[in-house]
Amino acid sequence: MADIVCLGIDPGLARVGYGAVVQSGFRLRALNYGCIETFPDMSFNERLLRIYDELQEQIKSCKPDIVSIERLFFGRNTTTAEYVYQARGVIMLLAAQNKLPVIEPKPNQIKLALCGIGDAEKTQVQGMVQRFLALDEVPKPDDTADALAAAVTGLALQFSS
Amino acid sequence: MADIVCLGIDPGLARVGYGAVVQSGFRLRALNYGCIETFPDMSFNERLLRIYDELQEQIKSCKPDIVSIERLFFGRNTTTAEYVYQARGVIMLLAAQNKLPVIEPKPNQIKLALCGIGDAEKTQVQGMVQRFLALDEVPKPDDTADALAAAVTGLALQFSS
Repeated sequence: MADIVCLGIDPGLARVGYGAVVQSGFRLRALNYGCIETFPDMSFNERLLRIYDELQEQIKSCKPDIVSIERLFFGRNTTTAEYVYQARGVIMLLAAQNKLPVIEPKPNQIKLALCGIGDAEKTQVQGMVQRFLALDEVPKPDDTADALAAAVTGLALQFSS
Repeated sequence: MADIVCLGIDPGLARVGYGAVVQSGFRLRALNYGCIETFPDMSFNERLLRIYDELQEQIKSCKPDIVSIERLFFGRNTTTAEYVYQARGVIMLLAAQNKLPVIEPKPNQIKLALCGIGDAEKTQVQGMVQRFLALDEVPKPDDTADALAAAVTGLALQFSS
């Protein structure tokens, strides 16, 4: 079976976590991972542009076969939701421009894939990310760990669907 | 005074209205205008990609100095809002990639700029679009007329700010 690379993304405006995971048979290994940051002193347009440019670099670098972009949930129609969804649109566009199939796991699907239960605690998910990928420590910040969790889930889900 | 071209955009997912207006002194004239359509049988990614590609063509064609993108308001945090905001993010990215200053008028600012009152009826706004731009008829669909209204507002606001 050929290796499969999934790039997981935890969408946001101030922080976009990304993490590429390669699956070789039953073995998972992390490739590049990290967090793209944008700041309130930048214009909204500049922030979208930075997310686009830096994520495009990561796609070039890890050459994913699929992308796993976590779905967002907001309890109320806050201003935050408005801006974060716009940032997520930029990420979805990038996937389309690179002709990459997209998996969009919900938070509870990610918890289920990594921990076996849909309401696992955040720290439990992060612990499983570390174990599955045999990392020396939990990747920081949370957005990076969440992106790697999305990548692992994307690899799991593509065989179940 | 040099001519100024403003590209107005009425963001959406199924329909994105666009309309370029050039201001020469006190005279306004419509350049290209119309409506980009995407359909439910397309994937969400394909829809974002079509919006991006077709709007990029319009930007190349009318070479705007500024872009006026209407702000969106949703009463509740509906699924529609989620997808329309993602489409709006793609439009904002395009403005940033083309290094275009963005004006984001609210619906009541558009009504005020065209009709002198912030709660004007939709048909009244459309009638003023037709008169300001000396068009033979009201542009169809509504999204196109709304985009031209956003363009006229963009030209008005850039001098008031």
